[in-house]
Amino acid sequence: MERFDVVVKNGIVLTMDDEMRVLSPGNVGISGSEIRYVGRDEVKGDEEIDASGCVVMPGLVNAHTHSPMTLFRNAVEDQPLEKWLKEYVWPVEATLKPEHVRIGAELAAAEMALAGVTCFNDMYFFMDQVAEAAVEVGIRGVLSEGLVELFSDRASEEVLKKGVSFAEEYHGWRGMIWAMLGPHAEYSCSLEFLSKVREEADRLGVGIHMHLAEVKPPVDEFVKKHGKSPLKALDEIGFLKRDVVFAHMIYLDDEDLKLVKERDVAVAYNPVSNMKLASGMARIDEMLKLGIRVGLGTDGPGSNNTLDLLQDMKFAALLQKLRYLDARSLPAKSVVRMATRGGAEALNLDHLIGSIEVGKKADLIVVDARKPRYQPIRDPYTALAYCSSGSDVRDVIVDGRIIVRNGEIQTIDLEETMQKFRDAVADLFG
Amino acid sequence: MERFDVVVKNGIVLTMDDEMRVLSPGNVGISGSEIRYVGRDEVKGDEEIDASGCVVMPGLVNAHTHSPMTLFRNAVEDQPLEKWLKEYVWPVEATLKPEHVRIGAELAAAEMALAGVTCFNDMYFFMDQVAEAAVEVGIRGVLSEGLVELFSDRASEEVLKKGVSFAEEYHGWRGMIWAMLGPHAEYSCSLEFLSKVREEADRLGVGIHMHLAEVKPPVDEFVKKHGKSPLKALDEIGFLKRDVVFAHMIYLDDEDLKLVKERDVAVAYNPVSNMKLASGMARIDEMLKLGIRVGLGTDGPGSNNTLDLLQDMKFAALLQKLRYLDARSLPAKSVVRMATRGGAEALNLDHLIGSIEVGKKADLIVVDARKPRYQPIRDPYTALAYCSSGSDVRDVIVDGRIIVRNGEIQTIDLEETMQKFRDAVADLFG
Repeated sequence: MERFDVVVKNGIVLTMDDEMRVLSPGNVGISGSEIRYVGRDEVKGDEEIDASGCVVMPGLVNAHTHSPMTLFRNAVEDQPLEKWLKEYVWPVEATLKPEHVRIGAELAAAEMALAGVTCFNDMYFFMDQVAEAAVEVGIRGVLSEGLVELFSDRASEEVLKKGVSFAEEYHGWRGMIWAMLGPHAEYSCSLEFLSKVREEADRLGVGIHMHLAEVKPPVDEFVKKHGKSPLKALDEIGFLKRDVVFAHMIYLDDEDLKLVKERDVAVAYNPVSNMKLASGMARIDEMLKLGIRVGLGTDGPGSNNTLDLLQDMKFAALLQKLRYLDARSLPAKSVVRMATRGGAEALNLDHLIGSIEVGKKADLIVVDARKPRYQPIRDPYTALAYCSSGSDVRDVIVDGRIIVRNGEIQTIDLEETMQKFRDAVADLFG
Repeated sequence: MERFDVVVKNGIVLTMDDEMRVLSPGNVGISGSEIRYVGRDEVKGDEEIDASGCVVMPGLVNAHTHSPMTLFRNAVEDQPLEKWLKEYVWPVEATLKPEHVRIGAELAAAEMALAGVTCFNDMYFFMDQVAEAAVEVGIRGVLSEGLVELFSDRASEEVLKKGVSFAEEYHGWRGMIWAMLGPHAEYSCSLEFLSKVREEADRLGVGIHMHLAEVKPPVDEFVKKHGKSPLKALDEIGFLKRDVVFAHMIYLDDEDLKLVKERDVAVAYNPVSNMKLASGMARIDEMLKLGIRVGLGTDGPGSNNTLDLLQDMKFAALLQKLRYLDARSLPAKSVVRMATRGGAEALNLDHLIGSIEVGKKADLIVVDARKPRYQPIRDPYTALAYCSSGSDVRDVIVDGRIIVRNGEIQTIDLEETMQKFRDAVADLFG
């Protein structure tokens, strides 16, 4: 029998493959960066991780965040979005230097790794710095330079060029980074600009990551100005394709919802942020029933405040039950799928990640479900969706590499990172 | 200088006293079961706990739960309340034996202790068993035998007697247990029965713990039958006094809200359960502004599914922001207060617990905020409300006794408890 580099054995394995198999107990064999065995046979590895009583699942995919905003965490809280952005975030962001972003992203990547997030979809500035941080910590990133056309003092061409240059340089970098173009939102980019973004995305062969219909006033204004919803306007300029992931998508009418399905664009659902900023409740349960690809996002640490996707699964499911006043909405199994394979699908990376299957990349996590809070486990999807916290993640493997072991990050000196981070915060905010 | 039995030093101390002082760093000196020193001076103790970089706060008060329902956790999920109760919970509850309740409550008490809950307000059956479990684990309990009059095959007098006997025997037991009378809800108890409950509570000098206005249909039915809201009907029979704590209180009109304030009854807010069961959103922010005493509850593990009040603080705050579509609703500081001192006030125990003050009982916890997810801490209320999980609780002291140390429970053999619990689940569900 084949001997593997790493074996994770005796766990409750959630494969998240087409059959949604649960192997309890099950074993996973990894060699190089790939999964080579999934099943119940006894297997041997150079390194063996005993996952008895623990859940083994695909690494979590954070479908929407602004990771360097760890720098803004726990400051000026409980404020409306507009006030928070205009009076606090934007003035400080105007003074941001690449080195601030580097350490903010590094803390975020470490936090995500420790919480079982092995791939994240990020939009911010100085994304080369985020790429470096992600690769150093050892997690995958889908990264887009945030393109805020209308509120910029630079020309539109220059704004777009920034996103294009990043994509040209980093798409596919080290097998861990993918680029997207990141036009910020319907209220911060003109339709002319968005047409150019679409052209460039087609030319480069990269996706598009954009906020849409997050809060009501800009959607209403858009309709007033253009006589149609933002989504319909985007459709008319040929923007809507399978490579687009829209964050939020709260204020959609029935026709919009149909359009999302027809054009096969993907959605990133951010329940914590949507509640914290009092944005509203997206129609996620309906989207899933329509077969729309939906991933789960934390949004940035400024509006969450953690990057804990395991914990956010509970918000995701519960907010839908409230949305429809129906306890059956977005059940546990669907939300666990959303946080793993659903995110991979939304980012068009499901041929590589999002499930535990032979031939897929070895991105998987071990959640310590031996604690009282998980007992009795019964259905492992339920135990994960409703009982878990990122603080319960024990081991994390990405691309075949063990980056978290017994809750300790292996790839960086965490104390040093936290000290540098605190220094950067002091430098930025004085 | 006085030498203390135990000193917790160098922490970020949230006193939750009238001044809501934050001592960073601060020290707490404990002798016997009491807090003897709170301040910045260096103090010595026979035992010293270094809380550098950690938050030191009063033990959490879980204002409403059904702790033995750990037995029902992670089973038959994502179902409407009525179906779940009638088809699943009640048939199994009919076969419950005291020993099942004992081990269900023990697992729950261990889980709460590990998550920083040092006092819980509980309603279930065989509450003597719950009292024993709480005292063994070392946390405080406010316990009431659940009195389901209308769906019982026993006579009303017999139902009431069960609650009264428990209260007579256990109120004040070992300085750790208080009793209340626990009429179940407006739809499961007649007004005649509730009048008798009030009489007995007055005679015994104990409080009353009851569900009210949790879901809409029974409130509508009540109004149809009685021509007034349940709360108004309860007022007319003299039920509403300061010793009452009502769980949920979602379907209240403006007059009801005024009545709650005027009669000074307390409310237990259960945001996770209210979302999970699709019950609705209580008007908590308004209640706080009116000066109503509000505590935070997890509700039972069947409808949450954890007993993690730290994590539920985030649901509590975020659900109010959504309720009012205003990000300023129920800010971080208020929700941390609600989970500690607010709960103590709701249970009329704030002369003993709920704050870190000289002369109060030594119930306090140390939350490990050195993890990346809390950085930068800036405002500790925000860091707690939005970044924390019960899995981050490091040390727990109740009544001056260290019951959790470095995340390990000291008072019971946890492995043995979990094994017995699994055996009980197997016995009960086959």
